[in-house]
Amino acid sequence: MNFMNLNTIRVQEFLAICVNFIRTCIFRMLAEGPIPFHIAFIMDGNRRFARKQNLKEGAGHRVGFLALLAVLKYCSELGVKFVTVYAFSIDNFKRRPEEVQYVMALLEEKAKEILNEESLLHNYGVRVRFIGNLKLLNESTRIAAEKAMEATAKNDKIVLSICVAYSSTDEIIHAVQEACNEKRSKMLTLDTDNTTNEISVVAREGVDQDSTIKLADLERHMYLAGIPDPDILVRTSGETRLSNFLLWQTTHCFLHSPSVLWPGITLWTLVWVILDFQRAQSYLDKKKKLI
Amino acid sequence: MNFMNLNTIRVQEFLAICVNFIRTCIFRMLAEGPIPFHIAFIMDGNRRFARKQNLKEGAGHRVGFLALLAVLKYCSELGVKFVTVYAFSIDNFKRRPEEVQYVMALLEEKAKEILNEESLLHNYGVRVRFIGNLKLLNESTRIAAEKAMEATAKNDKIVLSICVAYSSTDEIIHAVQEACNEKRSKMLTLDTDNTTNEISVVAREGVDQDSTIKLADLERHMYLAGIPDPDILVRTSGETRLSNFLLWQTTHCFLHSPSVLWPGITLWTLVWVILDFQRAQSYLDKKKKLI
Repeated sequence: MNFMNLNTIRVQEFLAICVNFIRTCIFRMLAEGPIPFHIAFIMDGNRRFARKQNLKEGAGHRVGFLALLAVLKYCSELGVKFVTVYAFSIDNFKRRPEEVQYVMALLEEKAKEILNEESLLHNYGVRVRFIGNLKLLNESTRIAAEKAMEATAKNDKIVLSICVAYSSTDEIIHAVQEACNEKRSKMLTLDTDNTTNEISVVAREGVDQDSTIKLADLERHMYLAGIPDPDILVRTSGETRLSNFLLWQTTHCFLHSPSVLWPGITLWTLVWVILDFQRAQSYLDKKKKLI
Repeated sequence: MNFMNLNTIRVQEFLAICVNFIRTCIFRMLAEGPIPFHIAFIMDGNRRFARKQNLKEGAGHRVGFLALLAVLKYCSELGVKFVTVYAFSIDNFKRRPEEVQYVMALLEEKAKEILNEESLLHNYGVRVRFIGNLKLLNESTRIAAEKAMEATAKNDKIVLSICVAYSSTDEIIHAVQEACNEKRSKMLTLDTDNTTNEISVVAREGVDQDSTIKLADLERHMYLAGIPDPDILVRTSGETRLSNFLLWQTTHCFLHSPSVLWPGITLWTLVWVILDFQRAQSYLDKKKKLI
C-alpha cells in the first residue's frame, strides 16, 4: 500500500514537471509577441459554479480565490505588470445579507493572510491595492485591507488592484468632486493672497480659465490613477456587459468574454486571450500605418 | 427582349414580396420576446469593405450609409425606439485630410438630403440628432446638421442619434464643466441675493453641500441626456473595443461584435443580435429572482 502511494506521488510529481515544462515553453513562445501590460478581470460565475458542483453556499467564492491565485501566478510568469479584478461592486451590497456577509468575511480572512510573510501573494512579489469606496466596508474588513496594502507596498513584481465597493460611476463622481475641491482650495488660497484676507469669487478671465475642470484633473483623481489603462478586459461566464467596471479606463481595451465560469478559468483561457490580443495588435499596427 | 425584361421584373417583384413576408414573420416571432428600446452601433469596417470590393476611396462610407438606412428600417419595423451610431470620432480628425474632407462632405450631403420632405428618413418617421462637439465641424457641415435636426424635430417613430466629433471622454468632461458652471451661477445668484450685491464665497455648510457635483448633475449635461441608455451595443468587423464610445451609457449594456463589416450588415445580423439579447434577458430575469 505504501509502495503504491509512493508510486502515485512520483507519477504526480512527474506530471507536474511535464505541465510546468509545457507552460514554460508556451510562455516562451508568447513572449515573442507583445505581452499586455495590464489585464483586468470581471470574476463572474462563482455562484453558478457552486450550484453546478453542488457546493455549499459561498464555496464558489472560495474556489474563485484559488483561481485568482493561479491567474496571478501565470500573469507574473508572463511578465504582465498589472492585474485588476472586480471583486465586489457597490450594487452587490443589495444582495442577500448572508451573501454580503460571507464575501466580506472571506475578503477580511484573505487580507489578513497576506500579512503573513509566507503568503503566496508575497512569494509572487504581488503589491496589493484595494480600490473603491472603502468607507462602505465594515470597519474590521477595511482595517484588514489597509494593513494588507501597507504590508505589500514594497513588492514590485506585479500590482494586483482588487476593486471592492467599486463602481465606475462612483469612481468618476469621486474624481469630479475631488477635482472641484482642489480647484476651490486653489481659488480660496489665491483670493486670500490677493485681497488681504478678504475672500471673494474672482470673475477675472485668467482665473476662470484656471478653475475649469480638465481631463488631466479628472485622471489625477481616479481611484486607478497612476496605473496604465488595461490592454485587455476579460469577463468570464460568457457575459459581455461591463457592469459599471472600469468604464473610464477601457476606452481602447480589448474585451473578451470566454464562456468558462471564473473558478473554472485555466491556463488555456489566458493563453487564448493573449493570442487574440497579439493578433489584434498586429492588425492595429497595420491600421496605424494606413492612417 | 422586352418580354424577358418584363419577366425579370416580375420575378424580382415576387422575390421582394417573399423576402418582405419572411421578414414580417420573423419580426412577429421576435416581438413575442422583449424588444430592445435602444441599440447603438459602432459602424466599423467601411474602409476595409471598400478595399475588399476594389471600390474607390470613400465609396465604403457611401455604401455604409445605405446599410444604415436598411438598419433603421428594420429597427423601426421591430419597434426599437432609439438608434445611436458612431459616425466620426474626435480621434478620426487625425486621419488623412482627404479622408476627413470626404466624410464631412458626405455628412453635409446627407444632412441636406434630409431637408427634402420626400427623404427616406422622413418616410420612416426618424428624428435625427447630431451628437458631439459640433463646434469642431466646419461651418457649412454644422449648419446643415442643425437644419436637419430642426427639420425632423417633430418625427416621433424613432430617434437616430448620429455621434460626430464625439468621444465619451469629451462628453464626460463637457458634462463636468457644464455642471460646474451651473453650480457656480447658482452660488453667485445666491450670494448676490444674500449680501446686497457683494459677491463672496460662502463657506457655510449648507451651501457647500449644495455646491457638490452629484450623479444627477452630470447625467443632466451629457450629450445623450434624456435618451435611455442603450440595451445593446453592436460593433461590426469583429472588434471588441469601445473606442471611447458611450462609455458612460454602456454600464449594463450587452456588447456584440459580429465579424461582418458595417456595409455588409444584414437583417440576419440584427435578428441574431436581438435573439442573443432575448436569451440574456431571460437569464437576467432568473438571476434577479435568485437575489
